[in-house]
Amino acid sequence: MTKWVYSFGGGTADGRAEMKGLLGGKGANLAEMSSLGLPVPPGFTVTTEVCTYFYDHDRKYPDDLVEQTNEALTKVEEEVGAKFGDPANPLLISVRSGGRASMPGMMDTVLNLGLNDETVEGLAKRADDRRFAYDSYRRFIQMFGDVVLGVDHHHFEEILELAKEDRGYMLDTEMTAEDWAKVIEDFKAKVLAETGEPFPQSPKEQAWAAIGAVFGSWMNQRAITYRRLHGIPAEWGTAVNLQAMVFGNMGDNCATGVAFTRNPSTGENAFYGEYLVNAQGEDVVAGIRTPQNLTLRGKEMNNSKLPAMEEVMPEVFGQLDDVRHVLEKHYKDMQDIEFTVQSGKLYMLQTRTGKRTAPAALKIAADMVGEGLISEAEAVQRIDANSLDQLLHPTLDPKAERKVIARGLPASPGAASGKVVFTADEAEAQAANGEKVVLCRTETSPEDIHGMHAAVGILTTRGGMTSHAAVVARGMGRACVAGAGELRIDHKSGVMRVRDMELRAGDLVTLDGSTGEVMAGAVQTIQPELSGDFATIMEWADKYRTMAVRVNCDTPQEAKVAVDFGCEGIGLCRTEHMFFDAERIVAMREMILADSGEQRRRALEKLLPFQRADFIALFKEMAGRPVTIRLLDPPLHEFLPHEDAAVAEVAKASGLAEDQVRARSLKLVETNPMLGHRGCRLGVTYPEIYEMQARAIFEAVAAVEKETGKTVEPEVMIPLISIEQEFTILRQLIDKVAEAVRKAEGVEIRYLVGTMIELPRACLRAAQIAEGAEFFSFGTNDLTQTTYGLSRDDAGNFLGSYEQCGLIDQDPFISLDQEGVGELMRIGAERGRTTRPDIKLGICGEHGGDPASIEFCQTVPLDYVSCSPYRVPIARLAAAQAALARKNA
Amino acid sequence: MTKWVYSFGGGTADGRAEMKGLLGGKGANLAEMSSLGLPVPPGFTVTTEVCTYFYDHDRKYPDDLVEQTNEALTKVEEEVGAKFGDPANPLLISVRSGGRASMPGMMDTVLNLGLNDETVEGLAKRADDRRFAYDSYRRFIQMFGDVVLGVDHHHFEEILELAKEDRGYMLDTEMTAEDWAKVIEDFKAKVLAETGEPFPQSPKEQAWAAIGAVFGSWMNQRAITYRRLHGIPAEWGTAVNLQAMVFGNMGDNCATGVAFTRNPSTGENAFYGEYLVNAQGEDVVAGIRTPQNLTLRGKEMNNSKLPAMEEVMPEVFGQLDDVRHVLEKHYKDMQDIEFTVQSGKLYMLQTRTGKRTAPAALKIAADMVGEGLISEAEAVQRIDANSLDQLLHPTLDPKAERKVIARGLPASPGAASGKVVFTADEAEAQAANGEKVVLCRTETSPEDIHGMHAAVGILTTRGGMTSHAAVVARGMGRACVAGAGELRIDHKSGVMRVRDMELRAGDLVTLDGSTGEVMAGAVQTIQPELSGDFATIMEWADKYRTMAVRVNCDTPQEAKVAVDFGCEGIGLCRTEHMFFDAERIVAMREMILADSGEQRRRALEKLLPFQRADFIALFKEMAGRPVTIRLLDPPLHEFLPHEDAAVAEVAKASGLAEDQVRARSLKLVETNPMLGHRGCRLGVTYPEIYEMQARAIFEAVAAVEKETGKTVEPEVMIPLISIEQEFTILRQLIDKVAEAVRKAEGVEIRYLVGTMIELPRACLRAAQIAEGAEFFSFGTNDLTQTTYGLSRDDAGNFLGSYEQCGLIDQDPFISLDQEGVGELMRIGAERGRTTRPDIKLGICGEHGGDPASIEFCQTVPLDYVSCSPYRVPIARLAAAQAALARKNA
Repeated sequence: MTKWVYSFGGGTADGRAEMKGLLGGKGANLAEMSSLGLPVPPGFTVTTEVCTYFYDHDRKYPDDLVEQTNEALTKVEEEVGAKFGDPANPLLISVRSGGRASMPGMMDTVLNLGLNDETVEGLAKRADDRRFAYDSYRRFIQMFGDVVLGVDHHHFEEILELAKEDRGYMLDTEMTAEDWAKVIEDFKAKVLAETGEPFPQSPKEQAWAAIGAVFGSWMNQRAITYRRLHGIPAEWGTAVNLQAMVFGNMGDNCATGVAFTRNPSTGENAFYGEYLVNAQGEDVVAGIRTPQNLTLRGKEMNNSKLPAMEEVMPEVFGQLDDVRHVLEKHYKDMQDIEFTVQSGKLYMLQTRTGKRTAPAALKIAADMVGEGLISEAEAVQRIDANSLDQLLHPTLDPKAERKVIARGLPASPGAASGKVVFTADEAEAQAANGEKVVLCRTETSPEDIHGMHAAVGILTTRGGMTSHAAVVARGMGRACVAGAGELRIDHKSGVMRVRDMELRAGDLVTLDGSTGEVMAGAVQTIQPELSGDFATIMEWADKYRTMAVRVNCDTPQEAKVAVDFGCEGIGLCRTEHMFFDAERIVAMREMILADSGEQRRRALEKLLPFQRADFIALFKEMAGRPVTIRLLDPPLHEFLPHEDAAVAEVAKASGLAEDQVRARSLKLVETNPMLGHRGCRLGVTYPEIYEMQARAIFEAVAAVEKETGKTVEPEVMIPLISIEQEFTILRQLIDKVAEAVRKAEGVEIRYLVGTMIELPRACLRAAQIAEGAEFFSFGTNDLTQTTYGLSRDDAGNFLGSYEQCGLIDQDPFISLDQEGVGELMRIGAERGRTTRPDIKLGICGEHGGDPASIEFCQTVPLDYVSCSPYRVPIARLAAAQAALARKNA
Repeated sequence: MTKWVYSFGGGTADGRAEMKGLLGGKGANLAEMSSLGLPVPPGFTVTTEVCTYFYDHDRKYPDDLVEQTNEALTKVEEEVGAKFGDPANPLLISVRSGGRASMPGMMDTVLNLGLNDETVEGLAKRADDRRFAYDSYRRFIQMFGDVVLGVDHHHFEEILELAKEDRGYMLDTEMTAEDWAKVIEDFKAKVLAETGEPFPQSPKEQAWAAIGAVFGSWMNQRAITYRRLHGIPAEWGTAVNLQAMVFGNMGDNCATGVAFTRNPSTGENAFYGEYLVNAQGEDVVAGIRTPQNLTLRGKEMNNSKLPAMEEVMPEVFGQLDDVRHVLEKHYKDMQDIEFTVQSGKLYMLQTRTGKRTAPAALKIAADMVGEGLISEAEAVQRIDANSLDQLLHPTLDPKAERKVIARGLPASPGAASGKVVFTADEAEAQAANGEKVVLCRTETSPEDIHGMHAAVGILTTRGGMTSHAAVVARGMGRACVAGAGELRIDHKSGVMRVRDMELRAGDLVTLDGSTGEVMAGAVQTIQPELSGDFATIMEWADKYRTMAVRVNCDTPQEAKVAVDFGCEGIGLCRTEHMFFDAERIVAMREMILADSGEQRRRALEKLLPFQRADFIALFKEMAGRPVTIRLLDPPLHEFLPHEDAAVAEVAKASGLAEDQVRARSLKLVETNPMLGHRGCRLGVTYPEIYEMQARAIFEAVAAVEKETGKTVEPEVMIPLISIEQEFTILRQLIDKVAEAVRKAEGVEIRYLVGTMIELPRACLRAAQIAEGAEFFSFGTNDLTQTTYGLSRDDAGNFLGSYEQCGLIDQDPFISLDQEGVGELMRIGAERGRTTRPDIKLGICGEHGGDPASIEFCQTVPLDYVSCSPYRVPIARLAAAQAALARKNA
């Protein structure tokens, strides 16, 4: 026989904390507290399996549910010493929903259930307080009418308002028992009028209606939407908790409150909470009365004049403080609790793991290790890796006022205030004068890089989380709000509009890259402080981690940030980013537009010294750590001159006519540049480009080794391989250059040659590619694009609506699609290792900094992940968590 | 001990015809003929393994090769009754290369080897002809000097010319023995001067040098290039054949000739060939003398005055005709033979399978079945499926003169002559006036469809074999030359330029879509005749075929062609092609630019009747055969209005301002349209589009069933699925529409819903997609693009050089990449069948008409292939061949 109902109370319970799937979070923890001997009002939980049964059987209950419920109710009656529906000594109960995950939008709570025209009198007698009893009854009708019977709450509020008006009252507290009795009559009449049925007088009927309402609300639209947005399966279902009522509003020796076992903002190990004397739970939440502090310390910190519970009810507070310690010792984590004091006696109504800020999470985890409550590994596992992002960037001062004018995607975290500029050149010029500027563009392109670097923040009106602006901003650690579509930038007239508001160049604007908010004016920001707890947890994380963490970066500045954040090498240095500097772009364009290998080589000769200097600086900064350098990758036309001045400049440098420059540029335009003449295809058709780059790398190695005496081991990465032969001939070319440099410089050069695996075909042919490749780095941005047939530049048009209608859980450019892209990665890794068991495997797509994706990488497994500089700590922590999860699995 | 040398001659042989790998084609067939008792001059073959050994061992020979060669030579000496190097009675030999596949660029032949200053006298005595002997010697020096010693042939020709000039001769035949003796002295002096060594006098030395030259030529640049272009592995190596010389030039009872056992042009079962009296083999080929016909019939057919061999040497001709029958009976195929008559005795020097035209191939195969030589299955396997293409389109009259002005890709076969037009509208207008026009465009877009339809041929200056122009032209059966990059079209001034030539609108131009040639002026074309043999072979093919053959087509006209060609259904009807008609495009644009579902629905209402009428016509034409209809697929902006007039028209129809139309159009532009908002993504975001299309389909089904009483079973195909949920919600939408139409029309509607599998992710998730999908059609065009990360619009920039440098064997858009794309297909098919064992699997990419790809499809296996109308017969034959190959494997 299936057990549908689990009892708790009186120091025992049928359930346990681990049974959240069956009993819901609330029910499981009530059972656990009860077993711990804590003062929990008795009750029982109708399981989530009943909910599932209910929906599988056309909204019918299992046959034996009524019997099991009656038995459980009898136990509660015995424990409390009152009877459900007994006019003389009525048992009242609360009915609460409670799923595995907490879920707004569901029917929440009905209190005081069991009251009717007869039992209200019994309650009055027992409490010796008619007014309390009638007040309770009207509250019950109001709640039950609203959430169970579907009578809109404004009907009840209107009646109540009129009643007070008639009597010239200002406050509910002025209402007498008789006043309430009259209101109750009116409430009941309204229920009859609205539903066509009298308000149910049978407590059993009330109870079943409330249970039905909880289950019914599992499938209401708000709940469905919420589940979809949060990836909660409909099959989970909800449980229903029925529990004996306790009253915090039966007089001044009664109270109700909520508390955290430690401070959830700072993590400080101090009891923290609020309470109200003579009140029911919802009064604390509703904010009608100002709640008072639990402790003297809290009162002091909040400059409160109202007495603390520690003062008012020292004895009960002492009990509560004991409960706090029992719970922390038992759950080994900070708890969020609800309690009620009825006539001087403490009752626990709920406990659950408390939410906390990122700094608090770090402090609590570190402290609990110190207190011997948890192990270092547990501490590492306890931190939400993504939340570290908050700590690494400046944030808006939470006390400052903000005027939000538009919203976009939170593309790169951190906050920034500055003057509006509309061009990269202007950004650079103003920044050179010491101005803080926010670069505002419809979208950014590689030509804007210098301006993005000069700006404190970047705002775009088009593009998604992996648009150029977003990716580059994250790399640079600049705040970025992307795709703020309400804003329109009119570049010609130099104005940005949103509704009837206009912002011009020079106006102040503030971005919150962590929320996507755009604000007019300057809002104060505060700098992050990386506390000792952060360092401690990171240190522990590194002990458990098996994957290395590298960084995607192209400049010594970024490399320094990343090394400070603990990166162990560069996983992706994009050499094309090195060619946008004003002094280089002309030679680059000359090279692209060259008509012959000869012309191209001449232009490349000009680029060689720049490129070599770049690598020298990078190698020095990385001080012996491995550096993976990707040879030129993007479609050449990204570098093309568009404006007349640029065309003229290139014409002059190359000795071509301007029209020729334009004509050659036009020939390079592609229909689908992402699938075009790029990556190693450039290397194959114009070998002189990769030749120059290889030379620059190896000459830099020689120079740095000579200067510092330290070995540099570059990893040369060939992008976009789809055919194994591409790799073969390009590796030969690189080896030839290495040999030539070795001879010329007289130094041994140690290096690896490998490839980005970023096309489905490369995954399938990994065994063949690995014959020549010493490492694979999964380029999951491109691999996601080709696996889905989805351009990240264009996906913004519809991916949002895909997420909204639940077609996808998450943007696959943000969190790795494990079923599709992930399978290809597994295939690639497995086949690569078959050919070359010691092949080095990594990931260098944006996913390398996403905790869920990192967890997946651990299962492949990869040797390292590589991410943008500001995500290095996140990756370190996530990698540790992934390793621990794998070990425990 | 390895056998390096295989002897033949005297009615026996060590080798057999099957040993082509070891002996090369020539050697194996010489052995076979010898075993058949045919008169083959004795000789021996040095195997291809020696060639491989030679290159594996730094150009050294196996130790025992000399011994084996000597033994074989001794056998030849005994058989002939002469000795190699014997001054009294010298054996002369020929040395010929001969690999598994014939290969130009290799050293071909050295004749008369064994001659030196002494043996030439012996030959003179034996032949009783000094002049013949000295002529032979000088020929030997000339050939040996050129191909073995590397003395450029012009040196010898110069000496010869001077000798004739000095003596006042016009012809070689005027030279006397003494004249030749003098020339020989000069030749030898030239060899000494050029090589620093005297001409080798030792016959053995000559033989080894010639063998070395054959092996050496295997790795010369021309041979390497040829192998790369034809996919011949270097490991195959070549064999060397050494054979006793016979002389066709020893007098008037001598002759030499080449022949085909049947007519290679027509296939007629008649002996066909040419011969020359008193000549050596190369004289026939060199074209110095006009060859004579073998038979009286040939003489008659060619209006020749010169006597036929049948007349001149009736007895030897009779022997040759006997040999012809022996060979055909033995090889069971038409043979291409070489023979020599020495002093009235016939010698066979070569036999191999003869090349033939497509009509000849059909006739020979059909006849040979009739003659009981081969089975129907063998006949089917014997036809090169691709060659049928020649038969199905008009071709240029081979007798007509042609002035080729440019070359492009042979994008759609057939020939066409017409007036140059530069716009689709002009094409339509002129065609309406009865003009034949050739539409000349930089590239075509879907907006050009009506013009392409109106034209007899299409010429583009950009784009590859799977560009829009190429694909559509093949579908329509229009001749098309694509990507003729030498041509420049200046649309503004209405002129097409190539070098210093200008073509203007109205000028005549001719395209050969089978060769890619563009010709100025009109060249006569001839219409194809599909003979009875074609039908016979097709009928046999259909008996062996296990895969169905469907057609990719969108109009009743195309459908009719395809049905005539034997298609069994439509595998791909692209609905977007239906929207480019002048009267529809405006409504289509209105729909695309709509701002709300409401506006969009209004525009769709206008399109519904057109679309329904399209389907009605198509269903009727297909008369109950299955019709797969793909819902709207391409990026919407393909339909956008570009020109002012078009913008104005849309503005008027939709009630928008022109600027609004422009602004909305701009918003739809994508960076990578191939990876953009297209396919089912349109259906998900704008469900009303697919709703309208589904309604049009089902209403057409109802209409046709009511009118004809025949059942129509449409297969509704959802394109570009990457996520299984996309399929689920779109299938629901289609089912809902079907149900609604069923109710409204009162008829049962039977239909299937399936999907294109055209993205790597769809292959990986095929098991999940198959839960709802009743069929998969592999869209290998897109699948190739995403698997390689390669846009077919842009691949032209570099794919050519990839082919040239051997990185790929073939354009993967033409012949399926079996290792990459093919593996994904296998994965998709396997997973789909796991979920739904009876799932219908097909292919509808361009590969569906490519024989090699069809063979692959048989191994998956698929249920059907679908291709453009004019490739249906090719697909039928290729499918039969694939099935037979599979059965025999």
